[in-house]
Amino acid sequence: MTELQAVLSSIVGKKHVICDPAELLVYESDGLTIHRATPRAVVFVTSTLEVSRVVACLHEHNIPFVARGAGTGLSGGAVPLSQAVIIEMSKMRRILDINYVDRTAVVETGLVNIELSRAIESSGLFYAPDPSSQTVCTIGGNIAENAGGPHCLKYGPTVNHVLALKVVLPNGQIVELSGTEHFGYDLAGLFVGSEGTLGIATEATLRLTPLPEAIRTLLADFPTTTAASQAVSTIISSGILPAALEMMDFVTINAVEDSVYAAGLPRDAAAVLIIELDGEQAEVTEQAEAVTAICRSKGSREVKLAVTPQERAKVWAGRKGAFGAMGRIRPNLMVQDAVIPRSRLPEVLDEIYRIAERYQLCISNVFHAGDGNLHPNISYDGRDADEVKRVKQACEEIMRLCVNQGGSITGEHGVGMDKLDYLPLIFTEDDLHVMACIRTCFNPQGLANPGKTIPMLRCKAY
Amino acid sequence: MTELQAVLSSIVGKKHVICDPAELLVYESDGLTIHRATPRAVVFVTSTLEVSRVVACLHEHNIPFVARGAGTGLSGGAVPLSQAVIIEMSKMRRILDINYVDRTAVVETGLVNIELSRAIESSGLFYAPDPSSQTVCTIGGNIAENAGGPHCLKYGPTVNHVLALKVVLPNGQIVELSGTEHFGYDLAGLFVGSEGTLGIATEATLRLTPLPEAIRTLLADFPTTTAASQAVSTIISSGILPAALEMMDFVTINAVEDSVYAAGLPRDAAAVLIIELDGEQAEVTEQAEAVTAICRSKGSREVKLAVTPQERAKVWAGRKGAFGAMGRIRPNLMVQDAVIPRSRLPEVLDEIYRIAERYQLCISNVFHAGDGNLHPNISYDGRDADEVKRVKQACEEIMRLCVNQGGSITGEHGVGMDKLDYLPLIFTEDDLHVMACIRTCFNPQGLANPGKTIPMLRCKAY
Repeated sequence: MTELQAVLSSIVGKKHVICDPAELLVYESDGLTIHRATPRAVVFVTSTLEVSRVVACLHEHNIPFVARGAGTGLSGGAVPLSQAVIIEMSKMRRILDINYVDRTAVVETGLVNIELSRAIESSGLFYAPDPSSQTVCTIGGNIAENAGGPHCLKYGPTVNHVLALKVVLPNGQIVELSGTEHFGYDLAGLFVGSEGTLGIATEATLRLTPLPEAIRTLLADFPTTTAASQAVSTIISSGILPAALEMMDFVTINAVEDSVYAAGLPRDAAAVLIIELDGEQAEVTEQAEAVTAICRSKGSREVKLAVTPQERAKVWAGRKGAFGAMGRIRPNLMVQDAVIPRSRLPEVLDEIYRIAERYQLCISNVFHAGDGNLHPNISYDGRDADEVKRVKQACEEIMRLCVNQGGSITGEHGVGMDKLDYLPLIFTEDDLHVMACIRTCFNPQGLANPGKTIPMLRCKAY
Repeated sequence: MTELQAVLSSIVGKKHVICDPAELLVYESDGLTIHRATPRAVVFVTSTLEVSRVVACLHEHNIPFVARGAGTGLSGGAVPLSQAVIIEMSKMRRILDINYVDRTAVVETGLVNIELSRAIESSGLFYAPDPSSQTVCTIGGNIAENAGGPHCLKYGPTVNHVLALKVVLPNGQIVELSGTEHFGYDLAGLFVGSEGTLGIATEATLRLTPLPEAIRTLLADFPTTTAASQAVSTIISSGILPAALEMMDFVTINAVEDSVYAAGLPRDAAAVLIIELDGEQAEVTEQAEAVTAICRSKGSREVKLAVTPQERAKVWAGRKGAFGAMGRIRPNLMVQDAVIPRSRLPEVLDEIYRIAERYQLCISNVFHAGDGNLHPNISYDGRDADEVKRVKQACEEIMRLCVNQGGSITGEHGVGMDKLDYLPLIFTEDDLHVMACIRTCFNPQGLANPGKTIPMLRCKAY
């Protein structure tokens, strides 16, 4: 047993420390498998105090660390660079308090996203942020990446639902950070989306949302992605704010229909929109009529209404299973993430397909159209070095395209390791300096999740 | 002419620098007149570049500064402590860009809040945050204090409407900070509510909101504040989210009715609620019926509907003019600000009236009941030293009461100078340490708005 292993075992118990190389393999990457690194050890923690003691110990030994929830992130955020120790949060999954009157919940951050909504469903509430991975991903990972999801169009991403956080700072100190409901510096807001570089959130006070009285889920097919994009713009500019407004293109539709997630999507459509409306009965009925008319006027052949909860669930299973379904096309999938002004959808989608053609790659699009959050996905074979090179080149062109159209390099998956090189497309040296200062202020030794979010060299320079 | 005056004049022109003691008097306080200090000079700026050059010059000379918009703040945030130079933003009031498709506006921060909504009204949009002072207060002041307003119940406070900021850092450097729509550290979110201590925002990219199709404004009277509070809780827990849900108590009602803002409020009611519903026609009609039934069931004698836009305007003029109307009661008014869980309204209001009795003070309540944001207002005579002492004691008791009930020491007016002493009621030493670190990282010399938001001694200590 190494000295580190002994010290960590004295805090969390021997069975909660993994150092066996074979077992460590599992923790080499997150959901975006192109980035890999082996951790020095994995430590399972069960309380804030344990996290604090483990972090204080690592701080004392100058050993880097990274918290890990379910490892479903798509930007390499949980990859243990610099031989970091992984602090495994999955045992911290208790719901500590639910206040039904004030509509708040206090949870441990290893809790799986969907578990919170399940626990409060019978009281007419839900937790709104719903990443596609919500059946497995954790609240802590959602906080680290400021996770979105289809319903964030109406309800906003994670940051809008976090009221306060209990955080272990990189020196082991435990602090409470409060959000915009409070006053002074919005430190909870700063922490959400900081990708583990400012410390580890162990408990979160979350906002709960009343379940809508009525839900209508529409499925509209289109002869071109441009027609579908125009329908998106027209719906939003009509003043209707759907709960979700998603687009799936031809390749995605067919991958889904070939898979276990088959949802009865029209295989010959260039694109489908999933438009979910929620609110009061009268309101959603009226909105569903208006949306149907808009889709028709933009060339939709058929606008189908998912009537029963089962039909609704099937449509969403198809949408949320799309990334999994892509596995049928090629062995590897690069799930890209970018954001553009909604008004630029037609041009940008056309240009993405041209980039695919130029690099001879299979690019499919399945994304949150309502808020301009693109997910161009590249299916490839990781064993083909030339193809991997073309994937990287295409990604870079897509990033430049989105930035040139007034957009940005990530919408909801975070910077992680994957987007570090693109930061200068968006930020000046001075802008990055400010970020580096913030990081240094929380994380002076750079031990908390090194190599993510902002370039490390910069952090060291300031 | 002093050397400072000469240097500043060389940047902004002689007529834009005020050093005459008589003219400086105007800038001694903001809307909360109990805190006063004389600035060293006042500088009118007209562009980001000028702000940058002025700030760089002050930084070089180690002279503190504070930006000032309309000076309507209610926590002493714009008071020039340490003989700070006031950077007067009112000439920077251009709307630089409006994008109707993506619903964003880029404005200079000296712009008066209402001017933005006026400029876009004809295109069916508005800027949602609406502090009572919105006809005079500036976007920059709103950003500094993360200002709220009645309609923030539904639409959220300023931070939810700021997408990006151009900021002059305390050393004169110009940076762009982006918000949660972007990625990485949410520095725009951190900046909103930082009360001038991290730099000066000169341009803001703001979110615009579609005007609702229909609005219903209801006025319901109640025999007790407890009955009104119960109606508030029942409305919210029924799942209805009004655009605004305001309470005015007996003293406030009568002060308003005696003033130019008279809105036909029932003088014999213990409290009235103003409940504004917005959305689609069918939805608001249904909600108005439900709200009326709830108010009746809680003992409301009459629920009046403001039918015409003129009637609506009259109700809101009464509500927003309430602070001005209080001038009739006593020469001075302490507008307090605190927040409590909505479910605690009855107990807390009762206890506030008991505190008033104990200290023989006239306390009235007019506030955002829907989100538990209290404004207990104390009318007093500033020339009566004993009464001033009792005002301070009562304020402290009210703060402790709100914190003990799970609330906080300010809801929307900020910490400024006024709430500094109450911070330890909410935060531990460690929590305050983190805030001090953040401040030091942006503002190492403590030149940007010294003596606000967090205790200065702490900042110097770290």
